[in-house]
Amino acid sequence: MEKIKSYSQMLRTKIFKIQAGKLVCVLNKVDAAELGVMAGDKVEIKNLRTNLVSVALVDETTTAVGENSIGLFIEVADKIGVTSTELVQVTPIQKLASNEAIRKKLDGNKLNDEEIFEIVKDITEDKLSDIEAIAFTCAVYMKGFDLEETISMTKALIKNGRIIDFGVDNVVDKHSLGGVNGRATMIIVPIVASAGFYMPKTSSRSITSAAGTADAMEVLAPVNLSFEKIKSITKKCGGVIAWGGAMDLAPADDKIIKLRHPLSIDPEGQVIASVLAKKASAGSHHVVIDLPVGENVKIKNKNEALRLAKKLVYVGEKVGLEVEAIITDGVNPNGPAFGPALEAKYAMQILEGKTFDNLAQKSCELAGSIFELAGYCRRGQGETRALEILKSGKALEKMIEIIKAQGGKVTSSTQIILSSLNKDIHAEKSGLITEYNIKTLTKIARCAGAPANKFAGILLNKMVGENVSKGDVILTIFSENERKLDLAVDAANKTEFITIK
Amino acid sequence: MEKIKSYSQMLRTKIFKIQAGKLVCVLNKVDAAELGVMAGDKVEIKNLRTNLVSVALVDETTTAVGENSIGLFIEVADKIGVTSTELVQVTPIQKLASNEAIRKKLDGNKLNDEEIFEIVKDITEDKLSDIEAIAFTCAVYMKGFDLEETISMTKALIKNGRIIDFGVDNVVDKHSLGGVNGRATMIIVPIVASAGFYMPKTSSRSITSAAGTADAMEVLAPVNLSFEKIKSITKKCGGVIAWGGAMDLAPADDKIIKLRHPLSIDPEGQVIASVLAKKASAGSHHVVIDLPVGENVKIKNKNEALRLAKKLVYVGEKVGLEVEAIITDGVNPNGPAFGPALEAKYAMQILEGKTFDNLAQKSCELAGSIFELAGYCRRGQGETRALEILKSGKALEKMIEIIKAQGGKVTSSTQIILSSLNKDIHAEKSGLITEYNIKTLTKIARCAGAPANKFAGILLNKMVGENVSKGDVILTIFSENERKLDLAVDAANKTEFITIK
Repeated sequence: MEKIKSYSQMLRTKIFKIQAGKLVCVLNKVDAAELGVMAGDKVEIKNLRTNLVSVALVDETTTAVGENSIGLFIEVADKIGVTSTELVQVTPIQKLASNEAIRKKLDGNKLNDEEIFEIVKDITEDKLSDIEAIAFTCAVYMKGFDLEETISMTKALIKNGRIIDFGVDNVVDKHSLGGVNGRATMIIVPIVASAGFYMPKTSSRSITSAAGTADAMEVLAPVNLSFEKIKSITKKCGGVIAWGGAMDLAPADDKIIKLRHPLSIDPEGQVIASVLAKKASAGSHHVVIDLPVGENVKIKNKNEALRLAKKLVYVGEKVGLEVEAIITDGVNPNGPAFGPALEAKYAMQILEGKTFDNLAQKSCELAGSIFELAGYCRRGQGETRALEILKSGKALEKMIEIIKAQGGKVTSSTQIILSSLNKDIHAEKSGLITEYNIKTLTKIARCAGAPANKFAGILLNKMVGENVSKGDVILTIFSENERKLDLAVDAANKTEFITIK
Repeated sequence: MEKIKSYSQMLRTKIFKIQAGKLVCVLNKVDAAELGVMAGDKVEIKNLRTNLVSVALVDETTTAVGENSIGLFIEVADKIGVTSTELVQVTPIQKLASNEAIRKKLDGNKLNDEEIFEIVKDITEDKLSDIEAIAFTCAVYMKGFDLEETISMTKALIKNGRIIDFGVDNVVDKHSLGGVNGRATMIIVPIVASAGFYMPKTSSRSITSAAGTADAMEVLAPVNLSFEKIKSITKKCGGVIAWGGAMDLAPADDKIIKLRHPLSIDPEGQVIASVLAKKASAGSHHVVIDLPVGENVKIKNKNEALRLAKKLVYVGEKVGLEVEAIITDGVNPNGPAFGPALEAKYAMQILEGKTFDNLAQKSCELAGSIFELAGYCRRGQGETRALEILKSGKALEKMIEIIKAQGGKVTSSTQIILSSLNKDIHAEKSGLITEYNIKTLTKIARCAGAPANKFAGILLNKMVGENVSKGDVILTIFSENERKLDLAVDAANKTEFITIK
């Protein structure tokens, strides 16, 4: 069947000088009816002077915009270059191919390469509404993506975003899937960069934890770096630890993550595609992925981790990444710190050789895996090489170089002064610490103000496997705000964050 | 685990004098971080002067609202009675029970009575975001509702809306599930009301067809009636044909229907609950449901219709409705008219006894089923009784009474003057008409301007089963606008709307 032509109308623009965050237009109910569209439908808006067009989602009003007019927010107005009271041509558009693909997935069918590409492209270009994008996410969550769909999604995310090309083949990266505290990244990047690799680490800010790597690194140096700056620092220092949000690497992914936040769902196929696409876009070739397993982290058991590991390796290969997935301990906290400044200070202390614990161990293990994967040393020797670099002081030197290159001034852990507003929590009984509930510790740290208040958080005084006597200090809560400190202490008293046997 | 208390902040209001259409507040990014919330999270806002509280969905900004302030749209401001520059207490709220229930359904689990009630209540009170509400709809679409869940949903919709109580037990109603053209309702209501029943018919406007019953009735009389007016007209005349959108009967249902429109999904469990809840809320006891079956309507085959019929009867019984579901022909158009004025004029002609065709037949059949269901006559005699009333002229008399009571002036089909802007479409070959594609006819009528342009639409000149010769007029397209007429003619020429053999 041939395409039926749509009726179009000339409407006069009224510009709302507000960012709507998406491509939206406001029509008077009379004009909407005349055009045969309703709220949630889409129209094409054409500036007849420049011939530029934009898709826009229709919102209806009886008051904000009069008849024969069309309300445009900044995004659409800028895109087609119109100012107020110009005439634009408005034409209803029939369903986008991406909308039909979403419907197909809702109906339980498999999507092909092209359909997934259309969806990702239209999310990137703001042509799909939040309703459509979240319906896609729900469908993938409920029905799943098979391997082919996951590969299509990964490729589509890469193609619909910027790509960094360093022109060399020793670019490596690491990712932790669901890790909570401890900033292994801040130890791994300087170790790996010391060995001559490029590791352009772009990290997220915390959504649900006490600190994201970007939050912790920000205590030492600015992390809100431009695309060009990240490229040049990597070339100069071998490593960078930046916030990835402004990079435009796979931007559709960032939009989806934001949208699905209130539902707390993370469809596996989307997560795999998200991780791998960001690494590929950042120019990496060899990627080590840390899969912490534990009751209170994202991956609940070893079988789930193994299944995920296989998929990550398989899909990675299809998009040109050599991936190694390593299953690690997600039961015990990674070191004693929860919160940006506490975690940053603690990572610096490890680099300075002042302490060596499970976090330092894990960091060397992961850095070692990168070495082995990238052919820097033979299998089985990576961890030792990483440890040597850490102990030699070269990693600390490299970290200070990176901090400086990013515009920071910190050169020693002693420069990070912890908050004097703090309170100790004591053991209620004597015995052996067999477990911490990482989820609950995170809640307490967040009550104290982390991650927004950089110096808020928790420092454990005793780790799993240690004995405590009744009354010993188990942990100290730090805060920047008395009311928040009280709430965090209250939370610690009300919750079971520790198991003593 | 006891509930952890949340940190709250006092923020100064900034009122945006715009209806947001939902409960939304705008926080500066700094305050959002300080409170530990992000876009899509929810807060409770308390007016300390009145102690009124409102839930609000957080939106973040760096420009529209400064630090220590909170932007409120009219809905929230009105709900808690604040004006600009007042201090309000803002507290993050942990997940609503309804949010957790939606997540449970996304995970493929069955919901209980209470969980479904919470979801419907929170949608009604605008406490759930569009994202959450559409995720619920997608989950129900993909996983389905079992009978118990459908009953829970129906009850929840009834409880969370207004209910009309006529204080009598002869209140009846009818609903068509997926019918396209022809306004059987406008024939059935006066027949049934003539027999002494109450039939308070609230109808929708068209979303995808050439006319909804409300659109067609509006050609004869105002349909935008108040709750009280609908009640009083029903008491006076026995019947009313009004637009249901302003009635607040099961308002959550209207919100869900609007939201899911861009996805073109209608989860069966939600549809059943929607139809039955609206009837129960309107005070009905006996309801006849028309299930047209055909390739180009909602219900594709008889098995599907039978399955649906059983469910409608079963669920209806559980909410106190005696339901009869009748499977009808959805292949042939219901009479020759598509479009508000054309369908209204044609219904009047049937009432006037000027024509009698498949639409008149079907209307008598459905009215007869209501009679039998409500015990007005014995099984097998209903249709004859309905036909007698129609032929006696009493139904026409009643219709004129209803039109007048609603504020209309039309008393005869001859007062509806068709548009002189029209064009005939001719048969391309000779033969027997075996089928019309109702979907395509609808598209042509919509191209011509229906339903917004009341006098736009299609009038078939030949029905299925008739013979045509090449060059005969098959149908006439009516329009109020030359460009639309051209587009509709073009659409008719490009599409296969008829099968001639």
